[in-house]
Amino acid sequence: MIKGMTDRELDLLTYDIRGFLISHVAETGGHLASNLGVVELTVALHKAFDVCRDRIIWDVGHQSYIHKILTGRAPEFSTLRRYGGISGFPKTNEHESDVYNSGHSSSSISAAMGLAESRALTGADYHVAAVIGDGALTGGLAYEGLNNVGNRQTKLIVILNDNEMSISKNTGSVAQHLSRLRASQGYQQTKHLVKESMQRIPKVGDRMVHSAERLKEIMRHAVVPGSLFEALGFTYFGPVDGHNIRELVDLFEAVKQLDGPVLLHVVTKKGKGYRNAEKNPGRFHGIGPFDVETGKELVSPGRTWSKAAGGALLDMAGDERIVAISAAMTEPVGLSSFAAAYPDRFYDVGIAEAHAVTFAAGLAMGGLRPFVYIYSTFLQRAYDQIMMDVCAQNLPVVFMIDRAGCVGNDGETHHGVFDLSYLSHIPNLVVMAPKDEDELIRMMKSAVTYDRPTAIRYPRGRVCRLPKEYSVTSSATSGVTSIATSGDFSPIEIGRSERLLTGHDVELRAVGKMVEIAVEAAEILGKLGISCGLVNERFVTPPDAASIILTGQRNIPIVTMEDNVAKGGFGETVTVLLTEQGCPVRVLPIAWPDEFVPQGGVDELMHTYGLDVAQVTLRVTELLRHYQSEERMKSLLKKIGESPQGED
Amino acid sequence: MIKGMTDRELDLLTYDIRGFLISHVAETGGHLASNLGVVELTVALHKAFDVCRDRIIWDVGHQSYIHKILTGRAPEFSTLRRYGGISGFPKTNEHESDVYNSGHSSSSISAAMGLAESRALTGADYHVAAVIGDGALTGGLAYEGLNNVGNRQTKLIVILNDNEMSISKNTGSVAQHLSRLRASQGYQQTKHLVKESMQRIPKVGDRMVHSAERLKEIMRHAVVPGSLFEALGFTYFGPVDGHNIRELVDLFEAVKQLDGPVLLHVVTKKGKGYRNAEKNPGRFHGIGPFDVETGKELVSPGRTWSKAAGGALLDMAGDERIVAISAAMTEPVGLSSFAAAYPDRFYDVGIAEAHAVTFAAGLAMGGLRPFVYIYSTFLQRAYDQIMMDVCAQNLPVVFMIDRAGCVGNDGETHHGVFDLSYLSHIPNLVVMAPKDEDELIRMMKSAVTYDRPTAIRYPRGRVCRLPKEYSVTSSATSGVTSIATSGDFSPIEIGRSERLLTGHDVELRAVGKMVEIAVEAAEILGKLGISCGLVNERFVTPPDAASIILTGQRNIPIVTMEDNVAKGGFGETVTVLLTEQGCPVRVLPIAWPDEFVPQGGVDELMHTYGLDVAQVTLRVTELLRHYQSEERMKSLLKKIGESPQGED
Repeated sequence: MIKGMTDRELDLLTYDIRGFLISHVAETGGHLASNLGVVELTVALHKAFDVCRDRIIWDVGHQSYIHKILTGRAPEFSTLRRYGGISGFPKTNEHESDVYNSGHSSSSISAAMGLAESRALTGADYHVAAVIGDGALTGGLAYEGLNNVGNRQTKLIVILNDNEMSISKNTGSVAQHLSRLRASQGYQQTKHLVKESMQRIPKVGDRMVHSAERLKEIMRHAVVPGSLFEALGFTYFGPVDGHNIRELVDLFEAVKQLDGPVLLHVVTKKGKGYRNAEKNPGRFHGIGPFDVETGKELVSPGRTWSKAAGGALLDMAGDERIVAISAAMTEPVGLSSFAAAYPDRFYDVGIAEAHAVTFAAGLAMGGLRPFVYIYSTFLQRAYDQIMMDVCAQNLPVVFMIDRAGCVGNDGETHHGVFDLSYLSHIPNLVVMAPKDEDELIRMMKSAVTYDRPTAIRYPRGRVCRLPKEYSVTSSATSGVTSIATSGDFSPIEIGRSERLLTGHDVELRAVGKMVEIAVEAAEILGKLGISCGLVNERFVTPPDAASIILTGQRNIPIVTMEDNVAKGGFGETVTVLLTEQGCPVRVLPIAWPDEFVPQGGVDELMHTYGLDVAQVTLRVTELLRHYQSEERMKSLLKKIGESPQGED
Repeated sequence: MIKGMTDRELDLLTYDIRGFLISHVAETGGHLASNLGVVELTVALHKAFDVCRDRIIWDVGHQSYIHKILTGRAPEFSTLRRYGGISGFPKTNEHESDVYNSGHSSSSISAAMGLAESRALTGADYHVAAVIGDGALTGGLAYEGLNNVGNRQTKLIVILNDNEMSISKNTGSVAQHLSRLRASQGYQQTKHLVKESMQRIPKVGDRMVHSAERLKEIMRHAVVPGSLFEALGFTYFGPVDGHNIRELVDLFEAVKQLDGPVLLHVVTKKGKGYRNAEKNPGRFHGIGPFDVETGKELVSPGRTWSKAAGGALLDMAGDERIVAISAAMTEPVGLSSFAAAYPDRFYDVGIAEAHAVTFAAGLAMGGLRPFVYIYSTFLQRAYDQIMMDVCAQNLPVVFMIDRAGCVGNDGETHHGVFDLSYLSHIPNLVVMAPKDEDELIRMMKSAVTYDRPTAIRYPRGRVCRLPKEYSVTSSATSGVTSIATSGDFSPIEIGRSERLLTGHDVELRAVGKMVEIAVEAAEILGKLGISCGLVNERFVTPPDAASIILTGQRNIPIVTMEDNVAKGGFGETVTVLLTEQGCPVRVLPIAWPDEFVPQGGVDELMHTYGLDVAQVTLRVTELLRHYQSEERMKSLLKKIGESPQGED
């Protein structure tokens, strides 16, 4: 359809698309600013390429909404990012033109090289292009890709979507290099040369017949001297205006004919065409439902774990050894205030998680106490550096793991449900999870006091607010529980859990966010006559072995609760510990299943997978079925069915 | 001492150092070629810097032998890389001039930036330098480091030790860029300009007083236009002759005075000064004890797992979908023959593990069947890509995990004892471990047939050769064991273990290499009257649950055996599975402890940590102590004490 459109029709189309996007994302929430920036670019790609035959890979993938709209998925946009709905990222099982399930940054060039090399070996015939942002270009994987493509001279088009932003303002020498390129004469030169060369190429039907070599020779002059990309073996074109469809299409048609690797530097504006997003592209990167007129989010996220975690560091900044690191996520992880107050002690390293961690190791070695704020799912990229640079050297780096556990609508590429599994087996590392904001602060202080590698993981969304009576400070091992004043911010002894309830029917042992759910479940279960013990574990490694074994010896069933997959998680730690001690206690592990969890609302997913209050209550009653008469059980289950499920 | 030496004395020193190095490494084995290449560079660093005050980070670290010799550790060189001896890598606990425990590649720039930034914040006063090879520069982490240092303009010296090699011949556009730089006029220009500028600087005692700005201005002219490093924000000098101490010292003294980041491009020859190593630097990269005259290794490694794994792929190459990937380790992983026979279907991506994996995902998506050969410890760098690019998309990539388990003398940064823990919780991934070469081949065929993500892990060193009677093919679950002809290369059903022995006192369930040890232990135990069952697990995920549960229901103790840390390993899988099924069976997990295992001979470490035949035998008898009378036990333990320990 697009193929036959006139320039005027294409302009109208982009106008319609922007209207559609803004109104729909205002309802569903999602990635807005980055999609508004690539409307023309996507339309031009659809015009110049056969998107079902050619292979276009969207790096990170959250900027693929227009592509989805243009491939017939507009009618499903009300289900965007919802459970069972269409994804906010390309998904191969959604449409044949979704080539690659992206999600994590900087992978597109490597993946595109794989497709391009397989094309040569299998004798297939299609174009391969990677669309990558300037933010994603700060990731080492992108560089490894460029280096290999350039060396092999793989026929491949890299479209650099330069909007001068990752999620936060972009940093790094490469960003400065791009800025110099933007300021250069390249744009006008390219424009002129492409036009000239296109005019010289006679058209035969829709295909162009010409000497590719000649075109290459002409276009080489457009190259800005000193380009990083030329040094890496690419033919560089640009920068070009990413909002001029005609120019983009001409350029795409031209470079399709070239043989080796090509990099097109396309300049776009994040949030383009929507005033509120243009003004504040960072806030409109990923946003909840909002009012189109004012741009205000309809549901206030309230006090989030991120704000709490960033704020706490600001409060601790009197200790001059404390420095903070973010990987292109300053605002989302709550560090904006710290960054503003202590610019010399704050580092945004770009999308470069491995560097963030090794850099932190160096800072720690130099006498500082770095706090590294990275999302759980992205910290996976620094697994080796956590182990080798920080933990093998036993350095006092604090990993502030944001978005741990289920994150909801971004789906399987973004859930932080593996961190307990990939961190628990790393020697020397203490892994903590707070039940509420006060405990988060205490854990951050514990980390500084402890002076060895630590990780604190906390979920996306609002901080938990537990009833006052659950703020107790004594150890689970002591057996004595005393109500403490809230606002106790002293460090916590490493490996010491906290008993919140004593009970004789079943023992709930919960990690982090699951403590709140356990508290509610225990209250319901109590009303049903089931007496629950409840321990806030606080430490996943080292676990509070003494307390766990004490419970095991009491020979009542144990329910472990964690916002992580079962495999390699805390439940397994408890089971293994008890088996070693010869305590043949029944352990029910409540955790995410060992599979990729799809997108959906957090509460919806927690319910579906058996982790919310209602499901926990049910599963515990089933575990205890033999304690109950059948009739009692029925009335009990009926009551539970009527209890609120805590959705929001 | 070096500080006061004349040029003539320094020359003699380098001569002595080379002789010392060659004769000692000929006895102990170790990294030779890379150290021979940096003799003059290290001497020059020691002359120009205060190595105890200044912070020099050796990337990868295996080229730090000269540094160790120059810091008084020569007398300990006979203990190099041995258990309890000095390390083949820098170790902060060995000497104050060992700044950073390197081991994995490409981390030095990020770590150095951390030290340099902490210097500024703590008001300390020292120089920071990172010595990094051109091979390590292909790693994305190095690029992330350069990008951040360049952007922040951190005062820092990067010394690029360019020997045109990583372990295999170097690849990538950056390598080509370096080659162009080497061919340029930069060398002569730099030489001249440094000389000129040094003459102009008046000396006041040992310190030079001058205008750093002026020097910078003069030296800027030495910069080769178009340098990649200039684009990244570095002041580039070079290339310079890495075997000319005087020139190096002058240059170091000069750049110490500069403010921002500097990159010195130093050209060295790997293996320099030892004919055999110059001729074949790859073979002398890491080598066992050898004859100095002929250069031949004294102990033939025999048929290694690597050779078997590379050879098997060559045999399977009739399937044209098969392609192979190495990350700068073509020869060590056994792929040289495949690379020579099928250059179009072989990719050496350089030290770029993350790219290797994502590239493989792209190849698989394009219809090919990539086999990715990477050491267990280095594959840690691609944890996220294994999960997100391969497994979340369920792509048929085969991970050939070489050097899994204990690797011996390279120590804690190189043992592959975490892979079962970091792979087992990744959804969709099948993890296998063969007991011998035939089974390795069958698993590779199973992987191609299965057509989804698989990993095959096998250890360093000689392939196991089990007695004929242990080559049986039936399933453990069937209970029927039938002797098969050796040379059965049919695929293995996914998740099916193999029973090798039936027994009624204890059941050994062993993974991979541990099967051989279990076979020997079972024989000794049999002679002592203990009847052992023995299962070759073959699949770590999915485990053969039916077989494990059957054993559990028989209510005899189970001993799991794996060459991996206990946490997150196979033993935990068995324990959890049995607990879920309500089988309160005693499980003794034989595995590496949850700590960083030091260097030493493999057999020595296996013995020390309780994993060799003698220790397994002892631990099993202790487990079964209650089955035996005390007198019987005594004679039994005495017998075991006299049994050979299988050292080599």
